[in-house]
Amino acid sequence: MAVVLVPLATGFEEIEAISIIDTIRRSSINVIVASVDGNEDVRGAHGIIIKTDKSIKNISADDIDMIVLPGGWGGTKILATDEKVQSLLKEMDAKGKQIGAICAAPYALEKAGVLKEKFTCYPSVKEDIENTGYDATKKVVSDKNILTSQGPATAICFGLEIVKILLGEEAKEKVKTGLLADSCE
Amino acid sequence: MAVVLVPLATGFEEIEAISIIDTIRRSSINVIVASVDGNEDVRGAHGIIIKTDKSIKNISADDIDMIVLPGGWGGTKILATDEKVQSLLKEMDAKGKQIGAICAAPYALEKAGVLKEKFTCYPSVKEDIENTGYDATKKVVSDKNILTSQGPATAICFGLEIVKILLGEEAKEKVKTGLLADSCE
Repeated sequence: MAVVLVPLATGFEEIEAISIIDTIRRSSINVIVASVDGNEDVRGAHGIIIKTDKSIKNISADDIDMIVLPGGWGGTKILATDEKVQSLLKEMDAKGKQIGAICAAPYALEKAGVLKEKFTCYPSVKEDIENTGYDATKKVVSDKNILTSQGPATAICFGLEIVKILLGEEAKEKVKTGLLADSCE
Repeated sequence: MAVVLVPLATGFEEIEAISIIDTIRRSSINVIVASVDGNEDVRGAHGIIIKTDKSIKNISADDIDMIVLPGGWGGTKILATDEKVQSLLKEMDAKGKQIGAICAAPYALEKAGVLKEKFTCYPSVKEDIENTGYDATKKVVSDKNILTSQGPATAICFGLEIVKILLGEEAKEKVKTGLLADSCE
């Protein structure tokens, strides 16, 4: 069974995190929701507190098929500096494994040096990212093993692309129908 | 300050609940996330556990300006039978106060006898609702004091309509821009 890791750090954007987790869990993929600071409860940018499954401390790149970062500037700043998250991103990339990030979180990929040329992100965040291949026209951008997306309103489409990458088009279409997500490509 | 109550019962649909809470909290509206069974932690349909602010037990219709029900069949069945939720819905309606429900949750409004003629809901759920004014063409349907919506992918648009009802068009547009929710009307 494919395994996706979603690390939550204080200040994560809630619509993004939950849309990703919920959408992917509607397929057969196993989603691990991990706490970055080790506390079981993690508070999002709008005060919503989520209980995580485990701490990120003991998770290695060999345990997972993909790591996906939700946005929110507060959470992203932690993801961009936390040693465990940054080393996990580098290890995943070195092994050619899939990495995803939405909204502000592509910034944390750039800090790890794993962001490829083409990407998208929250419009204002592009100023903080040096890569020149920013694409404002697509909800989800794929470049090699890196998948990026714009923000809250594109999070379901982003989750569906993750299902497609790991399980294929048919699994994606089934989840898309259930979510009534006709507007995703 | 306007106050919105979002009751969570075990089996609630997570994208819907969190999209509603997050979207509304991006305005100046105060959102109370309340536990229906009194346990602080409530588990959603896809295993995501949310910490609630308080129990619904001591909340009265006078404390709130609107009650909004997330969907998910598990949660909806509880909302449709729980005495406190059902009496609160009836009291809100008798006072002409705003009521919202998405996905399966309009079923809980019908059980309370507060659903008006025009409504929308998750497509398969319309079979369980006797009112004849089902509208499959709109993401969000308004009839008198009752606002209904279709499902996960329409939840942000639904939240934005709630902001519009309580604070007006300008507040809605500001939140809509922040969410990148151009596809909402």
